[in-house]
Amino acid sequence: MATVKLWTDEEVAADPRVKAVFDDIRTTRKSDFVNNFWRALANQPAVLERIWANLKEIMVAPGALDPLTKEMIYIAVSAANSCAYCAHSHTAAARAKGMTEAQYGELLAIVGMACQTNALANGMQIPVDPEFQIT
Amino acid sequence: MATVKLWTDEEVAADPRVKAVFDDIRTTRKSDFVNNFWRALANQPAVLERIWANLKEIMVAPGALDPLTKEMIYIAVSAANSCAYCAHSHTAAARAKGMTEAQYGELLAIVGMACQTNALANGMQIPVDPEFQIT
Amino acid sequence: MATVKLWTDEEVAADPRVKAVFDDIRTTRKSDFVNNFWRALANQPAVLERIWANLKEIMVAPGALDPLTKEMIYIAVSAANSCAYCAHSHTAAARAKGMTEAQYGELLAIVGMACQTNALANGMQIPVDPEFQIT
Amino acid sequence: MATVKLWTDEEVAADPRVKAVFDDIRTTRKSDFVNNFWRALANQPAVLERIWANLKEIMVAPGALDPLTKEMIYIAVSAANSCAYCAHSHTAAARAKGMTEAQYGELLAIVGMACQTNALANGMQIPVDPEFQIT
Amino acid sequence: MATVKLWTDEEVAADPRVKAVFDDIRTTRKSDFVNNFWRALANQPAVLERIWANLKEIMVAPGALDPLTKEMIYIAVSAANSCAYCAHSHTAAARAKGMTEAQYGELLAIVGMACQTNALANGMQIPVDPEFQIT
Amino acid sequence: MATVKLWTDEEVAADPRVKAVFDDIRTTRKSDFVNNFWRALANQPAVLERIWANLKEIMVAPGALDPLTKEMIYIAVSAANSCAYCAHSHTAAARAKGMTEAQYGELLAIVGMACQTNALANGMQIPVDPEFQIT
Repeated sequence: MATVKLWTDEEVAADPRVKAVFDDIRTTRKSDFVNNFWRALANQPAVLERIWANLKEIMVAPGALDPLTKEMIYIAVSAANSCAYCAHSHTAAARAKGMTEAQYGELLAIVGMACQTNALANGMQIPVDPEFQIT
Repeated sequence: MATVKLWTDEEVAADPRVKAVFDDIRTTRKSDFVNNFWRALANQPAVLERIWANLKEIMVAPGALDPLTKEMIYIAVSAANSCAYCAHSHTAAARAKGMTEAQYGELLAIVGMACQTNALANGMQIPVDPEFQIT
Repeated sequence: MATVKLWTDEEVAADPRVKAVFDDIRTTRKSDFVNNFWRALANQPAVLERIWANLKEIMVAPGALDPLTKEMIYIAVSAANSCAYCAHSHTAAARAKGMTEAQYGELLAIVGMACQTNALANGMQIPVDPEFQIT
Repeated sequence: MATVKLWTDEEVAADPRVKAVFDDIRTTRKSDFVNNFWRALANQPAVLERIWANLKEIMVAPGALDPLTKEMIYIAVSAANSCAYCAHSHTAAARAKGMTEAQYGELLAIVGMACQTNALANGMQIPVDPEFQIT
Repeated sequence: MATVKLWTDEEVAADPRVKAVFDDIRTTRKSDFVNNFWRALANQPAVLERIWANLKEIMVAPGALDPLTKEMIYIAVSAANSCAYCAHSHTAAARAKGMTEAQYGELLAIVGMACQTNALANGMQIPVDPEFQIT
Repeated sequence: MATVKLWTDEEVAADPRVKAVFDDIRTTRKSDFVNNFWRALANQPAVLERIWANLKEIMVAPGALDPLTKEMIYIAVSAANSCAYCAHSHTAAARAKGMTEAQYGELLAIVGMACQTNALANGMQIPVDPEFQIT
């Protein structure tokens, strides 16, 4: 139950602007499966185009971080933000990119630990050490 | 300005329980510098001992993720949780472990992107695809 | 599945204090439908009365912002806070007040963008420009 | 540096609507000190009146929870929400109501632990046990 | 639907490391019921052991706060962090420890109030009064 | 104190890629003032370009929502996310676009109210009414 309609493949095929993005998702990911996130965004073609362009640039294009590290960072943020959808979709993506259960276990441990010390530092409002200042 | 006193080295030296943790922090990190987070936790020895033991186990002990990846995940969570102290301390730690500006730039880009799509998925309450179900 | 019982109309009718609030909700909204939020709050009459009085004053009484703008602001906060219930109820309310799909698309885009730049500013702990100081 | 002007006692004295709230704050708290939160809200008299009325009803009026427990719950939420102002003001209020350092230490430990397990449960999207269902 | 397998009692029995933790949970809680949180963590034995040891030390061992107050603080944080699982499990735990509906109502009222004033203080970025400074 | 260097106008002038973005910011906003957010992003030219392009498209280009409504939505999200920088910069921007104190007061009231009911709905995990389902 979403606040918007999830577009079927038939509806996508009938809208050239949406179809172009879906075609690029399928080509880029080398898979016919397009998940609900994009089927929801299809209601807003401008948002759909921008988010996909951003995601492709940030998560797909080669860069200084490897694809698995990127997905694990995405999982970490999604857990902190309590995003059920993104926790599921990016954990699946990380596993597809080779995340082992040992890596996932350490990732979860770090996320939990960070949320714990974030709360302690925010609760006590600890002042930042001058040693951490960049020069 | 914190909600608690930040312990000086003299105060630490006078309390064997706190001193033992500070000594271990210095030995483990091979540095005499102990940052304010620990000087704030010193007011609560039981919390100090537990948090340091946890952090040492999760962030220092060798495991499936390399130390730099761990720090970058910590930064990501701290940014999502709006923790000023942790953003500073873990960005400094990540740089000390070799994080390049290119890696930091990609990390920031991913964190921003994840917060954006988290908000979209939470706002539209997109249902999780059955394809993401583990078997 | 909630942590509290959801009151039926029969149970509401049997409790004068709760009934008075439900009657006012129905009169104010010109609708017989009372959504689950109030049926959950009915377990705590003092909270029920205060929240409804506040909401009526803030969201229903005429003021400097029009009713649709108010609902869109409510949706924005609910998406940022990952509130499934409020995302649904206030998106429905905004549509009932005339929100177009184009407006909803722009709202979602702004919320996503704000969450993205919030994370960047919090991650880098960017100092506030003196130019933003009120005089 | 706030986004609004902080009202001085002179400005408060010149505005009967704001003055009435400040007078009640001083009488209720048996103290002449009125903290910045109210001096900021003074710019919005309707918000000032409502928030003070709510706070007085929830935090000051006698009820099922004792005043110190109430303040500790307030601190917990403020730490989780990264509210610097509220962490400071409610920690000071809790100490004024007798919170010991041992109680504060346990409070911080619980808040940190809860944030940690919240992140783990949200990250793994653990389904709620039917045993937790109310009947 | 979780991102990990939930361990059955048979699977737990076959893994000595996981079994030891589950046995201690059952003994400590004087109940055969082990909820899904632990069945999810069982996939990561090191995390399972650490989280249980931490929780036992913080929530079960006697201290300066009584068990019911601890659970109510846990509920408050879980509501602020939008953790569905923890809201359910800790509300059930608080009720098992004697939380009355009147106490729960006041707890909810405080949590809502704190989230409201947190947002106001964060929105206006109200500066902390020097009077709140510890000496 | 940020985690990155804030670029001066001289440093910007010496980097054609960064300079192009700053020039466009100045032209678009018809102002020579470029705030710290962009001076921090300048360290990451790819992020700088993308964020500015996104912001220009979402916040500057004409659309279904007027510019002031957009800024108020941005403030709402920034308050909910505890972003000090964005609360300041977007409140200043909203005032520059004509936000009255009465509008700002109502905006703050809505944000506070939404955070309150978000916490109540998340705390009680109230199920979404079928009436809110889109058809």
